[in-house]
Amino acid sequence: MAVAKVQKYATTESGDTLEIIERPHGGLSVVLADGQRSGRAAKAISNLVARKAISLLAEGVRDGAAARAAHDYLYANRGGKVSATLNVVSVDLVTRTLVISRNSHCPVIVADQHEIRVLDAPSQPIGIYPGTKPSITELPLVPHTWLVVFTDGVLSAGQRYGERLDMAQFVADFLDSGEGDAQALADAILERAIQLDRGRPSDDTSILVMAILPRVREDSVRRMTVNFPIDKLDKK
Amino acid sequence: MAVAKVQKYATTESGDTLEIIERPHGGLSVVLADGQRSGRAAKAISNLVARKAISLLAEGVRDGAAARAAHDYLYANRGGKVSATLNVVSVDLVTRTLVISRNSHCPVIVADQHEIRVLDAPSQPIGIYPGTKPSITELPLVPHTWLVVFTDGVLSAGQRYGERLDMAQFVADFLDSGEGDAQALADAILERAIQLDRGRPSDDTSILVMAILPRVREDSVRRMTVNFPIDKLDKK
Repeated sequence: MAVAKVQKYATTESGDTLEIIERPHGGLSVVLADGQRSGRAAKAISNLVARKAISLLAEGVRDGAAARAAHDYLYANRGGKVSATLNVVSVDLVTRTLVISRNSHCPVIVADQHEIRVLDAPSQPIGIYPGTKPSITELPLVPHTWLVVFTDGVLSAGQRYGERLDMAQFVADFLDSGEGDAQALADAILERAIQLDRGRPSDDTSILVMAILPRVREDSVRRMTVNFPIDKLDKK
Repeated sequence: MAVAKVQKYATTESGDTLEIIERPHGGLSVVLADGQRSGRAAKAISNLVARKAISLLAEGVRDGAAARAAHDYLYANRGGKVSATLNVVSVDLVTRTLVISRNSHCPVIVADQHEIRVLDAPSQPIGIYPGTKPSITELPLVPHTWLVVFTDGVLSAGQRYGERLDMAQFVADFLDSGEGDAQALADAILERAIQLDRGRPSDDTSILVMAILPRVREDSVRRMTVNFPIDKLDKK
């Protein structure tokens, strides 16, 4: 899996939070939360929500319950006045499925060797309405499945200029080209989104790509790489 | 930063747990725990410990307190009968420092442009003795600093054959060669350790490399890539 993430132009901090955790019974879960508005206030919200979901998932709580709990927590904490979108994607090795939970107006793109699907069932953001629950899709864990999850910076990219990114088409073209891994796709989507915004992202933008692929290496080594740019490292 | 992680030969699960979290005031923290023994029991321990530390760090609790709490939790939970090693490494953007907390007999290697240091002050594993606290080192966050953290699978590599991996020398040689990023170093260490064990790791082995480097890209995009091999994906 791969992530590419950038904050809104001229803000110091992204209001999106992405966290990953290993599931206690096997597999991993990724949580992507987008706090209302941008900057520090949004970050505090998305951090609160992601933290709640991640800590429950780490304890073995099922995805739907973790998403409901994150909603309840935000709703209680902020009196129903602050919203966030929340996506949880899990590779569950017990059920051998991909579990996709959406509390967001942003669709999730699923591609396999036969077709591209857009998961866009109506779903509410968390934090505002009582009893909010996620829209959940469960898919078999089979090779050549690709999943693309993103926050609304991708949806709003280019809007100021009357343009938009057709994600399903973009993903189809990328996969047709047959080249590039998950990070290449995440980077390509982010690059295109920033381009549509003329180099100045109109919103916090995060892209998560998960690809279930046949092994290329014989070893069973887990690997993780993180690039975390720091502003003004040389200055105090 | 980069991670390479493999389980002991002929076990189904690594007893090491590594988790990463964004710090609420800026920066990130990585927790690496190694549960006593190997396999499922060890995994349950290291998961418990890592989860406790990570959830506190995510709430803004300082590193030393999070490590103490992880100890207290394990000590209370298992009656002082089960141990784990725990390392916490943080990039703290508030203090502009690297914070290294050790509860492990495994040293941490720190390299900068002038020298290689081995952080090996005596420190206890958590879970066994009352009042255990971490050995903490704080370093300025300056470019060209490399940090190598590992679990004792690296220490025991080759022992059966009367050999061992001189980590400080290995890191020095790698950096002298001037080639390769954090992932290349983590991979090289793991490869050497497995080689010393004649292809059959004698223990769970995890390596974390953190490198503070001048920017190579102009963008401020955060990126993360995770490779998570799944056994027998095609079989049910």
